[in-house]
Amino acid sequence: MEPIELFSYWRSSAAYRVRIGLNLKGLPHRITPVHLVREGGEQHSAAYAALNPQELVPTLRHGDRVLQQSMAILEYLDEVFPATPLLPGDAEGRVRVRALAQLVACDIHPLNNLRVMQYLERTLQASAEARTQWTLHWMAEGLAAMETLLAGHAATGTFCHGDQPGLADACLVPQLYNAHRFGLALAPYPTLQRIETACLALPAFDAARPERQIDAG
Amino acid sequence: MEPIELFSYWRSSAAYRVRIGLNLKGLPHRITPVHLVREGGEQHSAAYAALNPQELVPTLRHGDRVLQQSMAILEYLDEVFPATPLLPGDAEGRVRVRALAQLVACDIHPLNNLRVMQYLERTLQASAEARTQWTLHWMAEGLAAMETLLAGHAATGTFCHGDQPGLADACLVPQLYNAHRFGLALAPYPTLQRIETACLALPAFDAARPERQIDAG
Repeated sequence: MEPIELFSYWRSSAAYRVRIGLNLKGLPHRITPVHLVREGGEQHSAAYAALNPQELVPTLRHGDRVLQQSMAILEYLDEVFPATPLLPGDAEGRVRVRALAQLVACDIHPLNNLRVMQYLERTLQASAEARTQWTLHWMAEGLAAMETLLAGHAATGTFCHGDQPGLADACLVPQLYNAHRFGLALAPYPTLQRIETACLALPAFDAARPERQIDAG
Repeated sequence: MEPIELFSYWRSSAAYRVRIGLNLKGLPHRITPVHLVREGGEQHSAAYAALNPQELVPTLRHGDRVLQQSMAILEYLDEVFPATPLLPGDAEGRVRVRALAQLVACDIHPLNNLRVMQYLERTLQASAEARTQWTLHWMAEGLAAMETLLAGHAATGTFCHGDQPGLADACLVPQLYNAHRFGLALAPYPTLQRIETACLALPAFDAARPERQIDAG
């Protein structure tokens, strides 16, 4: 197998998603840390920008292929390494799982990204309190919709879709890590909490946790 | 064929993406407008929230299936109606197209969405000038990365990937509509401009334009 290298930052929830996907599929890989904060951010180095012109993590190198965007990377891994699929086999299940994943990846996480928090602070001069409220607002709004979509839906099982973890879980768990970090009250989301517990009991999720990474600190 | 109904708003770039996808595939469909601004926003009505708990457009109804999230919907259409594919057939091409699409769908558009602009105005009391700068900042940053990824890449053709339009073009063109609307200077993005011109010359893109919609005004 061609070597897989993941450019990752321990606290990046987009990188965390890909770590989960690689672990679920049991794919050996090397993690190369990219420190997003130290010395102005290693993601802005010329060497890294050549791999990822957005200067964001993650980037995945598979052989001589250089891949950007966590969701595209996870779909790629699912196509190239179809064992332990991240998506169900039927179109109705696939669109449900992708929609749940994208609710996090498009409508929660991008609003709370480091570069956005830096813009709020440096350009809009938003206070620390206002920035925290911003973060909590988008999380609460998105997670409430996700709870509604999951709770009581016949396709929801031990995990977001049935009894095998997949793409939606790989997005949910990192988002809930951020929710814990910012102190969001999680009582309104019992289904999300239940699924998080089930996921983190699995070695694939546990090993992907931020605090388990070599660059955690 | 089971009927297809798209809940759309003329200026929503996420809805615009799906209109392009439906047109490229030649799928007959009915458009139901959801006015995002009038009377506090029709997307917040109980009837619409039951279809889309995020209270966002688009929603697609296909028979008795109710689908959310524009990118998930486009993937669904590509799986259920594989003629005129929106994604290439090879994994390397597919990850490239998805990454380009997600650069827009995850890292530009969500930051400039109506609900975000409303939060900046109402909660952070950002001025009209500061809000416009915010919008232009994220567009310029994202489109610059997209130009870098496209310009000179061997797989870029008449369109983002080869000589058939697809998922990345369906995201790029609506984003450039927003760029024009907010007066972003497009000179730094010659490849994006060239692709936009090629797309809008096609009836599928032209008919999907905001100003061609029944709810435009």
